Formats: sequence, structure tokens, C-alpha cells
Amino acid sequence: MNKNKQISFAERYQDIVKHAELGEMSHARGCMVIKPWGYGIWELMQQHLNVAFKKCDVENAYFPLFIPLEYIAREAGHVSGFAKEMAIVTHKALKANHDGELEIDGELENPLVVRPTSETIIGESMSNWINSHRDLPLKLNQWANVVRWERRPRIFLRTVEFLWQEGHTAFATKPEALADIETMITVYQTFVQDKLAVPVIVGEKPPSERFPGADQTLCIEAMMQDGKALQAGTAHYLGQNFSKAMNISFSNQDNQDEYAYTTSWGVSTRLIGALVMTHSDDHGFRVPPKIAPYHIAIIPMSPKKVDDAGKQKIIDYCNQLKHECESIIFDHAPVRVKCEAPQQRSSDKKWSWVKKGIPIVIEIGLRDVENGNVAALLRTAVDSKPAFIEKQTFITSLPETLTAIQDQYYQEALQFQEQKTVRTATTLSELKSHFKGDDSVFVWAYWNGDEAILDELKELAITIRCIPRTTETQAGTCIFSQEETTQCAVFAKAY
Amino acid sequence: MNKNKQISFAERYQDIVKHAELGEMSHARGCMVIKPWGYGIWELMQQHLNVAFKKCDVENAYFPLFIPLEYIAREAGHVSGFAKEMAIVTHKALKANHDGELEIDGELENPLVVRPTSETIIGESMSNWINSHRDLPLKLNQWANVVRWERRPRIFLRTVEFLWQEGHTAFATKPEALADIETMITVYQTFVQDKLAVPVIVGEKPPSERFPGADQTLCIEAMMQDGKALQAGTAHYLGQNFSKAMNISFSNQDNQDEYAYTTSWGVSTRLIGALVMTHSDDHGFRVPPKIAPYHIAIIPMSPKKVDDAGKQKIIDYCNQLKHECESIIFDHAPVRVKCEAPQQRSSDKKWSWVKKGIPIVIEIGLRDVENGNVAALLRTAVDSKPAFIEKQTFITSLPETLTAIQDQYYQEALQFQEQKTVRTATTLSELKSHFKGDDSVFVWAYWNGDEAILDELKELAITIRCIPRTTETQAGTCIFSQEETTQCAVFAKAY
Repeated sequence: MNKNKQISFAERYQDIVKHAELGEMSHARGCMVIKPWGYGIWELMQQHLNVAFKKCDVENAYFPLFIPLEYIAREAGHVSGFAKEMAIVTHKALKANHDGELEIDGELENPLVVRPTSETIIGESMSNWINSHRDLPLKLNQWANVVRWERRPRIFLRTVEFLWQEGHTAFATKPEALADIETMITVYQTFVQDKLAVPVIVGEKPPSERFPGADQTLCIEAMMQDGKALQAGTAHYLGQNFSKAMNISFSNQDNQDEYAYTTSWGVSTRLIGALVMTHSDDHGFRVPPKIAPYHIAIIPMSPKKVDDAGKQKIIDYCNQLKHECESIIFDHAPVRVKCEAPQQRSSDKKWSWVKKGIPIVIEIGLRDVENGNVAALLRTAVDSKPAFIEKQTFITSLPETLTAIQDQYYQEALQFQEQKTVRTATTLSELKSHFKGDDSVFVWAYWNGDEAILDELKELAITIRCIPRTTETQAGTCIFSQEETTQCAVFAKAY
Repeated sequence: MNKNKQISFAERYQDIVKHAELGEMSHARGCMVIKPWGYGIWELMQQHLNVAFKKCDVENAYFPLFIPLEYIAREAGHVSGFAKEMAIVTHKALKANHDGELEIDGELENPLVVRPTSETIIGESMSNWINSHRDLPLKLNQWANVVRWERRPRIFLRTVEFLWQEGHTAFATKPEALADIETMITVYQTFVQDKLAVPVIVGEKPPSERFPGADQTLCIEAMMQDGKALQAGTAHYLGQNFSKAMNISFSNQDNQDEYAYTTSWGVSTRLIGALVMTHSDDHGFRVPPKIAPYHIAIIPMSPKKVDDAGKQKIIDYCNQLKHECESIIFDHAPVRVKCEAPQQRSSDKKWSWVKKGIPIVIEIGLRDVENGNVAALLRTAVDSKPAFIEKQTFITSLPETLTAIQDQYYQEALQFQEQKTVRTATTLSELKSHFKGDDSVFVWAYWNGDEAILDELKELAITIRCIPRTTETQAGTCIFSQEETTQCAVFAKAY
């Protein structure tokens, strides 16, 4: 698929998304269609995260799509970096004009904003629900669609509408709220590394890169196959900023009114883009088994020369194989198997599954039935011939096989990230020299925390992705000021 | 809660929804907040339906929130009953004016409609995806929010925004499409009766009550506790109407172009309203166990006189009890248990769970720990004292207990429906006589199919809810024309 070195990484990305049938851009400007294979991945992400959220005593709920303009105004009043690209509903009806054409009608007195994020509308509910310290902590999450008017949409990475989860919490004390964002960023790190097989760097955003209204933003940053960074999840400590704007107050243990300390945190369908840009190879997408809608595709091969009795034998064998595979547990759930309709020719179906990145494709012919075999093609070895394995051996080794594939993807991505990481830059010009050419890198370098000196890098589209949580405590020399500092930062180009 | 007979059924409904903490209306006009207990019910509905859909080879996907106006125009062109109350996005930005106030900005050249339903936008994708008869059938479903500008919103029953699933299919032949709506209405019937314990009548809508653009609409109709009907689910055979409007065509086996036959079907968060209006009693809501976010609430009772060692014993006992209950399987899944924080006073927590309608509330005091007992209060017997049962006996009998509660709710609702059903009306005046007073009824009566004669009943808000699928094949006399006919219809007032 990518034999031709001429096509750009962006084109390659779109090509892989298309052939993996993950989704496509729609005619509704900047909005995407998420196709069943992509949506199946999203549903598994939801399941995994719901389990993790529940362990943190987070409850799911649902809040309105539309936000009264006055809520946004209250937020804007205290937020300088207020983003204003939002979809606005101004009318509530259509009518036919004299020519029979549809026209908009029924102007609203108060326009409504389609939620770009829900701090204000959920804050309004919190304000009503929270009265006493006994009502705290309040930990809510919603799975929802949100809308931001992106100028240059790119499927899964940046679209006008996307799906996400947004957690919103309120606490009685600052330390509890700060602990919450550490907990949630760790939930994301564990989820993204363990389930998506995407290694990430956990860290804190420099002030200029924070969510508007946040006092602290934690993030996980992943490296894509072009060496660029992708922000894969964030958790914001909002202090009392939103609780003051939305009047989320409570009477504390001493019966005094106090504003709550709030947080918010989220991941989105962007993670599907992250999977594609982390795990694809020359044959297309490769989906980590723990997040694969199906682990195995079984294709019954019935060429014309096989008689009806033989065809039936093949179908029965395939159905039995499916059933037996589904009795095996992998990652706390039954193995997921898709059995296709009988095919005459081999390659079409097989390659469509390879491009989708399914971990295992099995073709079953009459000889396999007679020999009690399984011809299994692993996505990690598509260039090899399928291995003929005794059926029971194949089935009992499934957890092992799928675990090995999952681990391989993670290790490959981790090695790639390490190869593309530079830790030796001690001067600004040295740092810059690593960003020449098409492929990008992560540069870990010492930085004294002065944001004013980052402008020169911004012109080159290089930003600080985060101050990693796991820096060595050694001191080093700030690449800008040559001052001694213990603070290390990750510099990269980003999506 | 409903001791005062003066309050209306509508007020009672809102009161029960409020105290059950299912949801509330928000400040965003006509939109609702679904609170965790209500959303937990919705999540279980999603799980149950997803299992059923998958068995029918339906795949989940996701399509855009925004529909270009031109798609709606194409639909409107062939649909007479076209609903025009829709939210329209006309702008894409906000800006601050000279006074620092936010104003709408960035007018769109082509306004976008917030989806009221997705036949057109999904049809556009189907048009691209379907080329050959080999691409059919295509069976898709999406879980999504939709918006309709309701004039008189009522929580769960009729709100500007609500959540639903909408299935959209395309077939190569009319019989397959007709079979599909029979299959899906049966899926809904089974789901609503078996999981929600709500008895329904399955039938077909008379032409005037069909979904605009449908050639046939099947429905399930349930009776609420005021005797009114609530449409709980619909499945539409759309013939070639939408495939012609959206150009969903395919080359058939003879290599000739043909328009596909499409269907659509859906249920919504309205079902939460149906649960409330079917299963509530004087103490509030009662949630059928199969759809209850938690089956059991455990409340550790730690009055002040109990010392710390005693308190710890109670907590350990409760956690152990939770753990053991969760090892029991009910309706193919582990029993769901919520263990509360220790309480000093008994009644508050207990009654909040009773109003939420949880099937079982357990209070554990030191004496229960010492005796190895469980003080279990069943929602079906809240007026009785809690029964003290030996712990292991309680745990092993859980599937039986929960099944009995589920069955009781269904039987009570079925009996109520039968009591409030009249099958003897032979004249129009007799039919009308049954709709006097506040409480309504279902009247089964013969009808010759002439819709013009229904106008007189419409003035009394009485409509034909459906032509039931299960009428006796006997003939009878049409109540309007006194003609002989075999067609029976269900007449009722409706939500």
C-alpha cells in the first residue's frame, strides 16, 4: 500500500483509513461517518474506559447538546484563550417559500450554542445539585458528540463533530481535585498503553498550552509514525475558576459557603486516528487484539469443484470452529469471531481483512476439514504463507497468540519512539537541527520555564508537548538561557 | 407520595421522575438532563438491544449530527406530512462586540439542520456504499441524539433533544424489507415485554398515522397507568421512497439498475417514561430487575453506640455480602450491588432507594452480623417489615427473588391493561362513552378501514393506535358504518 515513497504521510493515513473501512468524511461539512469497523473499536474503548471509570466511582449521565449563550458568556468573562469557533442554532423551523423551496424560519430569541465541551452546562447542574460538603465529591462522565468549527478537518484527528467522553468532577478541597487529575491521567495512560498498545509520555502542559480556564493540565502524548506528537488524552484541574463562574458552592464542615474545586478530563475518537498512525504497516492497518471488534475472521473456501456435501462440511466445520474459539477467554472476554459467507476465490476477502488489520484470518478448505487443521494467517506475518495448525492446538493457544500480537505492537511502537527520541540537545540550534526534513522527532531538553523564549520555536511549529512526570531529578542546562535547571521538557511538532 | 388524590397524573409523573432521580429538565430550552439512575437504565437498554441487533446481523455505526439543507429538501419533495420543527445552525462563531458582549458571527452559506432523524444522511452514505446486489442487505444502526422542536416538552416523553437508536437497512427485494420490519418489531416486543416488563400490543398503524414517507409502519403500543397509550417503538417499511430521493440503487442479478427497498426502526429514552408510567406505585418508581442499574443497595447501619471494632465488622460484612451477591448470575449477568457509606440513621437512605425503585434494599446492623442474617426489604413489599433471612439462603435465592419481582411487575401491568380494555363497543356512541372522565381505556372495535370517518374521534383526542397483529379472524360490525369487516382496531387516547 505504501511502496511508493512519494506519497505523503497524510495521504498514506487517509488511504489506510479508507481501506481499513474505519470511516470517511461526509458531505455535511467537516463531519465524519464512522463505519462499523471504526465504530466497533470505539465501542470497545467505551467498554474498557467504563470499567476503569466505575472503579473510580465515576457515574455516567447525560447533559444537553445545546448551551444557552449566557453560560458561554459567563465562561468567556474569565477565560482569555476562549475559543469562539462554535456552531450556533438561531432558528427552529423550516418553511416552504413561494417557489416551494425550503427556507429557515422561526428565529430564536436566544441563540443556542452546540456544545464544544460541557463545563458550563454541567456546571449549571452541579450548582443545583451541590449544597453541602456531604454532596461531594461529585464525579460524572458523559459519552457525547461535540462540535468545533475546525478550518482544516482531517478524519478522526480534527473534525467538526466528534465523539468523546468528558468527565466532570467537583471536590470540597484542592488536594482532592489535584489527586483526581493524577488518577484520571493514569487511567488514560494505562488504557492507552495496555489496550491500544500505544506508548505515551505522561506530563504536564506548560501554562500557554493549558485548556483555557485550567490551572493545571496533565496530558498523555504519543508519537506517530512520522515522529510527530499526538495529544491522546487530557485531565484539567480547573481550580475554582468554573465553580465561581457557574456558582458551584457548598457549605463546608464549619457551615461556611465555599466554592468547589472542579476538574474535567477526556479522550475522543481521535484515538482511532492515533491507532492508525501508530500501528499501520505497508499492508494497511493493524488493530491491537484488545481493541479489535473481531479477533478472527473465518473464510470458508468453496471452489466450484467442491460438491454440495463438501461445501456443507466446510460450513459446519467453520461454524464449529467459531463456536469453539468463542469459548476461549482473552482480556477478560470471549474471543470475537466473524464467520464469512462461503467464497469461491481466496484473495479478495482475505486482503480486505488484512487491510482492516484483524489479528487473525483463517481460510478453511475441504482439505483442512479432512485433516482437522486451521490455516491461520497472523496479521504480524502476512508476508509468510499461512501456518497449518491442528485445530485444537490453534484454539487452546489463542490467548497466547493474541497476547503476543498485542505485545509485539506495543514493543514496536515503543522502540520506534525511542529511536526517534533525542536526549542530547544542549543548545537551541542543536534542538532545531533535529527538526530538518520530513520526519520529526521528540527532543527532551532542559528548559527553565520561561515561556517567552518559546516563540522562535513556534515559528517552526515546534512546541513543548509536556513536562514529563518521569524526568530524572538530575539538573542540566536550559537550552535557551544556559541556566542550570532540573526541569526537562519534550519538544516536538504536533497534530 | 400520591396520597393526595387531587394531583393530576401528569404532576404525579413528574414527581416520581424527580424523586427517583431519573432526570430533570435543564435551562437549555426543552432539553433534559439524564441523571445517573436514569442513564444507567438507558445503558442497560442499549446492552440488551445491542445483543438482539447483533443476532439480526445489524452493525452499529455513526453518522453526522448535521444534515445539509438540500437533503431535507429532497426528502420534503416527496413527503406530504413533512415535519418542519427543526433546529437550524446558521452561524459558526461568536465574537465580542464593543461592549464586550458575545454576538453570533460567521454566517454559513448553507445552513445545517440538526438531525431530527437520519434517513437522508444515512441514505447518502448508502447511496455511495451500495453498488451491486452483493452489497445487500445492508443493516446499520446508530445510537445518537436527535432534536425536534417540541412546543410542550415533557421529560422523557417529549423533549427537544432525546437519545435513541435508529436502524436503517437496505434490501434488494420488497419481501426481504417487509420481513425485516416484522423481525425488528418482534425484537422490540420481546425486549419491552421481557426486559422492561411492559406488556404491548403489536400492530400496524393506519395510513394517516404512519411515519411520513413510509408505506407501512408497525408499532408496539403500551398502556400507561392513566389508561392512555404510549407508542413504545416503531418499524417503518419505506418502500423505494427514500431510495429514489437519495439515489440508493444497485445492479441486480440481471445487471440492471434497481432502487433498493429500505426500512428504519427505533426506540428512544421515551421508554424510561414508559417504565415510570407503567410500574410506579404510591411509594414512587419501581424498576424491573432486568433493567435496574443496581439490584441491591446495602446500607451499613452504624449508630453512635456501636464502637469502632463493631463498625469495622459491619463494613467487612457488607463488603463480603456485596462480593457474594455479585457472584450470582441473574438474566445472564452478575447481580449488581451498590454498597453505601455507613449511615447513622436508617430511614433517609432506605427511602431514597425505595423511591428510585431498586428491587432490594438491605440494612445491616451489628445484630445481623452476629446472627449471620440479612434484613432484606423487597420493593414489592415496602409496607411490610424487612424479612430477616439467613445470609446464604438470601444469596442463593437471589435469581428466584429477582425473577419473581420481574414477573410480578409484568403480571400487574398486564392485568391492569386487561381491566382497562373494552372489547364490546359496537357503535360509535358506545365507543365514545368509554372515554368519559379522567381515566382512559383501550377500546378494541371493528373498523372498515375508512379513515375519513375518524375525524369525529380526533376532536376527542381519540385515535386508532394500531390494527393489532393478533386479532381474531372473526368478523364483526364496523362501529362507524355498521358494515361487516374482519379488521379490528385499538382506539385510545395517546401520549
